[in-house]
Amino acid sequence: MGKIETLLYGIGLAGVAVNAASGVLEAGRKPFDMFGMVVVALAAALGGGTLRDLLLDRTVFWIADQSYLVCAILAGMLSFAAARYWRLPSRLFLLPDALGLALFTVSGTKIALGLGVPWLVASAMGVITGVVGGILRDVLCNEEPLIFNGPLYATPAWFGALLLVGLTQIGVAAVPAALAAGAFVLLGRLLALRYDLTLPTYSARL
Amino acid sequence: MGKIETLLYGIGLAGVAVNAASGVLEAGRKPFDMFGMVVVALAAALGGGTLRDLLLDRTVFWIADQSYLVCAILAGMLSFAAARYWRLPSRLFLLPDALGLALFTVSGTKIALGLGVPWLVASAMGVITGVVGGILRDVLCNEEPLIFNGPLYATPAWFGALLLVGLTQIGVAAVPAALAAGAFVLLGRLLALRYDLTLPTYSARL
Amino acid sequence: MGKIETLLYGIGLAGVAVNAASGVLEAGRKPFDMFGMVVVALAAALGGGTLRDLLLDRTVFWIADQSYLVCAILAGMLSFAAARYWRLPSRLFLLPDALGLALFTVSGTKIALGLGVPWLVASAMGVITGVVGGILRDVLCNEEPLIFNGPLYATPAWFGALLLVGLTQIGVAAVPAALAAGAFVLLGRLLALRYDLTLPTYSARL
Repeated sequence: MGKIETLLYGIGLAGVAVNAASGVLEAGRKPFDMFGMVVVALAAALGGGTLRDLLLDRTVFWIADQSYLVCAILAGMLSFAAARYWRLPSRLFLLPDALGLALFTVSGTKIALGLGVPWLVASAMGVITGVVGGILRDVLCNEEPLIFNGPLYATPAWFGALLLVGLTQIGVAAVPAALAAGAFVLLGRLLALRYDLTLPTYSARL
Repeated sequence: MGKIETLLYGIGLAGVAVNAASGVLEAGRKPFDMFGMVVVALAAALGGGTLRDLLLDRTVFWIADQSYLVCAILAGMLSFAAARYWRLPSRLFLLPDALGLALFTVSGTKIALGLGVPWLVASAMGVITGVVGGILRDVLCNEEPLIFNGPLYATPAWFGALLLVGLTQIGVAAVPAALAAGAFVLLGRLLALRYDLTLPTYSARL
Repeated sequence: MGKIETLLYGIGLAGVAVNAASGVLEAGRKPFDMFGMVVVALAAALGGGTLRDLLLDRTVFWIADQSYLVCAILAGMLSFAAARYWRLPSRLFLLPDALGLALFTVSGTKIALGLGVPWLVASAMGVITGVVGGILRDVLCNEEPLIFNGPLYATPAWFGALLLVGLTQIGVAAVPAALAAGAFVLLGRLLALRYDLTLPTYSARL
């Protein structure tokens, strides 16, 4: 692998590990044992990419390369062990999680574009890769999904994915297009956290 | 496309839109933002057909033709906007929802029959196409699935699917067989609503 | 089929039936009707093998051979009928459930090994086949998954799957390797029930 590929592979593994840790932190509010924790960690870390690969009829990424599976299991177990001894502040994970969101969104969109699916589907695959793990994590914990409200999360991912689709369409080279889209997602998420930017909600009148 | 194909395609899009709206109405009881609403709408509108296509190893229908995805997103956003201004009675959706159930059941069964799967599997694919979206919607909202009790819903779908399998087996032509099965599902559901027909339940003694 | 194949096929159908019954018992705490019960029973009985087959891009086992579907529906309906008349003690199901866990773990691991996936993935497929049905059952019932705590369940399955991978790797013949791994899972689960062996948990301090 060249230098850039190695860097991206490393960031990908780091994103998986951070998502696994977020799964353990979320599951920590429940009386789950180590196995329950690791299942939630795996769902959080691998769920988005797995759904993307099933929908696109590709070989599931962690079956093709089990490093992702090893990484998610180890990160889940280490977080479990660490959380028994230290109070891990969830704020600790906000920056790596935003990095992971940016990377997963860009990689999911690029994979879909490479398979020639329609543009809106390609952007949806980016969003799915980025956010489905967090939804699965909360469903397994019997909670309402955290990312269904609060500071913008999926919204910067979707606009970043659309940006990548548009830049690719007008002929921008792969690396600058991916960097621009990834930076957009990362900045959008960090600004949303800093200034508490949210989407409209409504209390139902049904 | 001929006239009948165009009509069916239009009813299919309408069914997707109605299911997306039902997702928003259900999610309206929760403090979700617009993104959360749209995810629930997409799960409700596309979930059944997606599971059918994954199980049958077909190209997922909304990836092959993104009109369904566009339609579900627009219907979800419009319902969200409308529900902020008007009190939308959920009774409004009962008739279109019954139409969608009939159409999804027939189309799911026909697709499965065309692939040569066993008869009971073919009818199960019809039921899955018709009802899984509603189950996913409720799981994402952290609620017990609505269709697990109340007036008959999946039952007319299953008998209608079996009717279609039987009629096809004895050589009835495709159009009358589909019309008969669809009418059966629609009438069964409307009669169940009108006369509050239900299946037996039991309060556990465990 | 030879004698051993017939025996394994029968145990497989019995495992599906027991899992379907466990779904009905679990769903019995909810006000679900017969359809809701049967959906939960199908998810419990077929969910693990279905996810395994989707992940490995195989034909889903109950689509290839609908005996499993028939068996799960019948077992779900019979359990529903029986539970309306008798108080079924859930302890009744512990031994057959442990047998089913052993069989599903071994068969899932063997299938994955036959497809040449990496060793850790193969063991994960065994665990998925054995435990995902129970997780799906509880998600549909809007409960926290039972097997996320309590006496060891997935842990003996995982070690049994790893044992099977190791024995196959060092050239042990298929039948003794499968018997050893299956016996390990069965004994591990029964000992965990008998002596209340559990994994560590933690009450979160978040």
